Amino acid sequence: MSAEQYRQVVADYLRMMSEGDWQGVAALYAEDATVEDPVGSEPLRGIGAVTDFYRRAVETGARLHLDGPVRVAGREAAFPFHAEVKADGGTLHIHVIDVFRFNDAGKIVSMRAFFGEDNIVPA
Amino acid sequence: MSAEQYRQVVADYLRMMSEGDWQGVAALYAEDATVEDPVGSEPLRGIGAVTDFYRRAVETGARLHLDGPVRVAGREAAFPFHAEVKADGGTLHIHVIDVFRFNDAGKIVSMRAFFGEDNIVPA
Repeated sequence: MSAEQYRQVVADYLRMMSEGDWQGVAALYAEDATVEDPVGSEPLRGIGAVTDFYRRAVETGARLHLDGPVRVAGREAAFPFHAEVKADGGTLHIHVIDVFRFNDAGKIVSMRAFFGEDNIVPA
Repeated sequence: MSAEQYRQVVADYLRMMSEGDWQGVAALYAEDATVEDPVGSEPLRGIGAVTDFYRRAVETGARLHLDGPVRVAGREAAFPFHAEVKADGGTLHIHVIDVFRFNDAGKIVSMRAFFGEDNIVPA
């Protein structure tokens, strides 16, 4: 897998999340994937739990916007983005950095989402 | 340690790196710290190796500029920045995401720097 292919997975992830395509997002993941979202919480383990997570996540209708270059290093990719979420009476931006680790087949085997309450701000 | 304190360590790190203060930077680290820079390389282990690394790193004269909010999650912090480096006949920008993990005392116990060759661009 090349850096270009890893960047394509990131682009697909952001686009499919914004489109609500949770099946597409889940298909980017390996069978034995873990998702720690946010970092510091107990990771979800396995494609079943990961798929359930994304099925629920897209219900928020969030739109994801990349905020800088994707950094590909070794078999990992890190990227800054914000999620635009409609809330009661307004719009929130959640500033996140995701880190993906890939397996031999180019599937995401680990995802960690870095954000805290200070990163949730009015748009 | 609060999110505010973790953010202060990040601010100190960026400032001291830009000032060439490698002793100050090393003092942010725990005795048993590891540094993986870039991600995918063999990590440096222990404050001696980490201190040597920063003593050499500041010789580049790089200036570090934060490019978005610091994301504090659990006992970790992730942040996007670029290093401005003078090279033959011009200036380069290296776009990086660093991830710090902290110990109980608020010292950095793990640092991972995400960037690849595609992230090194003319200014």
